[in-house]
Amino acid sequence: MIYLDNGATTPLDGDVLEAMLPYLKENYGNAQSQHGAGRASANALISARDKVAELLGCRADEVYFVSSGTEAGNTALKGVCLNRGKGRIVISSIEHPALYESALDMQKLGFEVTFVDPDKNGVVSAKSVESALTDDTVFCAVMSANNETGVIQPVEEIAKVCRERGIFYYTDSVQTAGCCALPTATVDGLGISAHKFYGPKGVGALYIKNGSKFSRLISGGMQERGLRGGTSNVAGAVGLAYALEKAVKERQKNNAHVKTVRDGFLDRVLKEIPCAKLNGCKDLLLPGHANVTFDGCDGENILFMLDLKGVCVSTGSACSAGAVAPSRSLISMGLGEREAKSAVRFTFGKYNTREEADLVVEELKKAVNIIKRT
Amino acid sequence: MIYLDNGATTPLDGDVLEAMLPYLKENYGNAQSQHGAGRASANALISARDKVAELLGCRADEVYFVSSGTEAGNTALKGVCLNRGKGRIVISSIEHPALYESALDMQKLGFEVTFVDPDKNGVVSAKSVESALTDDTVFCAVMSANNETGVIQPVEEIAKVCRERGIFYYTDSVQTAGCCALPTATVDGLGISAHKFYGPKGVGALYIKNGSKFSRLISGGMQERGLRGGTSNVAGAVGLAYALEKAVKERQKNNAHVKTVRDGFLDRVLKEIPCAKLNGCKDLLLPGHANVTFDGCDGENILFMLDLKGVCVSTGSACSAGAVAPSRSLISMGLGEREAKSAVRFTFGKYNTREEADLVVEELKKAVNIIKRT
Repeated sequence: MIYLDNGATTPLDGDVLEAMLPYLKENYGNAQSQHGAGRASANALISARDKVAELLGCRADEVYFVSSGTEAGNTALKGVCLNRGKGRIVISSIEHPALYESALDMQKLGFEVTFVDPDKNGVVSAKSVESALTDDTVFCAVMSANNETGVIQPVEEIAKVCRERGIFYYTDSVQTAGCCALPTATVDGLGISAHKFYGPKGVGALYIKNGSKFSRLISGGMQERGLRGGTSNVAGAVGLAYALEKAVKERQKNNAHVKTVRDGFLDRVLKEIPCAKLNGCKDLLLPGHANVTFDGCDGENILFMLDLKGVCVSTGSACSAGAVAPSRSLISMGLGEREAKSAVRFTFGKYNTREEADLVVEELKKAVNIIKRT
Repeated sequence: MIYLDNGATTPLDGDVLEAMLPYLKENYGNAQSQHGAGRASANALISARDKVAELLGCRADEVYFVSSGTEAGNTALKGVCLNRGKGRIVISSIEHPALYESALDMQKLGFEVTFVDPDKNGVVSAKSVESALTDDTVFCAVMSANNETGVIQPVEEIAKVCRERGIFYYTDSVQTAGCCALPTATVDGLGISAHKFYGPKGVGALYIKNGSKFSRLISGGMQERGLRGGTSNVAGAVGLAYALEKAVKERQKNNAHVKTVRDGFLDRVLKEIPCAKLNGCKDLLLPGHANVTFDGCDGENILFMLDLKGVCVSTGSACSAGAVAPSRSLISMGLGEREAKSAVRFTFGKYNTREEADLVVEELKKAVNIIKRT
């Protein structure tokens, strides 16, 4: 199998699993329990939180362990909005469903929602966000990089615009965590998900700047300073912290490798497959992403044909997989429905090799030829 | 270490971890992805869901995988209430914080809340629930067994009362899953948490009867039929299903063992420690629970002294641990503040032995004597 869907999820790094295993075996205490078994878990949780805070560049009491990047986004958007009671939500039209669907849910409760489109390069400019902000805007979200195209967004500029107006600004850093420096210092909220940087599924972290008011999404016990209930997933938190630390340590090396493999792949695809066209600005791409439209081909057909050869790619994001509609992100960049449906996302990771990339180019050429003939 | 805090969390069964490991190693695909790696995960998720549905006695599309029992309770209470828009919430005053705090959060949004007290035996009668129900009641919750006392509640009778009035009835089965048959068929919603029956932390399951209207708590992708976003925690779901299956298979054997150990312990404590008094009706206890007030002693002191000897017990629930206030459950049963603060919860599990129980009795006697002397 050749796995080029690292944007959907990454394999769990064996070192990360090793770090987690003690908390899946002997250290099973509830981190809230006031006895030896509980303290062992509580200490592990404290260490994990400290590590995440250090890597994010924030205080430990600004880190909330949650179950996913999606929960992080929901907690921020719904939490801030429900705390304010009413107002406008401004988010980009290329947000992950975590934010997009949350905004629609809040709309049902009476909030106004404005969606800001990206330009044709897939970039949501600070200027376009600025012109959408109103006096009653209470929440703004533009992701750090788009999950489908991999286009990095001008988060710091957008943060500045929001900060000047006292508007809570959240950025979904699920795609960038591990491979990019995180803009924690400039935003009010930020979410990451362990399984996107070789950590376990089922755990994410949410940064909320101290002093920000938000209503909790999951109410319960005193976990996460009373703001996110549910018995702490200690093994998950340990895994997330370890995975993030390793990703940050190896960032340069991994990014260089991933980018080399991706660039080699992309160059060949654009050169050797005439109907291929990159979606999104090449200079602003995450190192591993390549979203390519194959004019005249159905993206799903390419996916299925590659799948038959043991190659894993995606059309759009996994969270939208199975959806009949064309990619919301691509459409909002100005692609036509047909072009959008002809897109395939290749996302490279640290375990991919140049040989794999070359094999996939060959399979792609065959697939496109067959589809074009039929 | 002698671990008598199985009500807070149980050790992960080695067999369950074995069942999970393939999904922490080679099968890492995103269950939403439409390729081989994704299908392997999707199939595991389908099997896990089918298994849970079978064990719960419901349809697979009535099972939602969530991150905890707390999330399950939040999803049901907030989901049903926000869907209705307004009305009254009726819950027992001995509910877990997942429900209790969720009700308080909804109260802030304008919902009315009525708390129903248990009798002095710790039982919330169907009659007392019935008299609290009003025409505008939209949601009712009484847990299957109380987490602190272990007293089993008359869920089926309460369900009947609610059903007659068309009121959504949720039962938190976090303490009973594994050791009791679940009342899925008679209720509208029910929540369980894997780590209470030797499964992993960070995963729970929620049953919501088909046809029930509720707003989703965590919005996002198409996971869980679009009603609970976030990349599926496949290893967690597999672990939950396996743990539940094993618990149900071994229920008779485990319950008999746990009850024998607990009864032996409790008999000796009540006989040999004059100030000891059981909280809750003995005939209605879960097999592993024993909540004992030691008159004239501070429960926390006993906990700390036992902890020094490597014995893990709790005062109240782990989710309320660290709280200065006396147990809400015990106070609502009519205990005075001092009595409630003198309570210690011993919760036995399948790995505990009679020898351990006997050792703890000896340590308890010493601890109580020292505290009484000082």
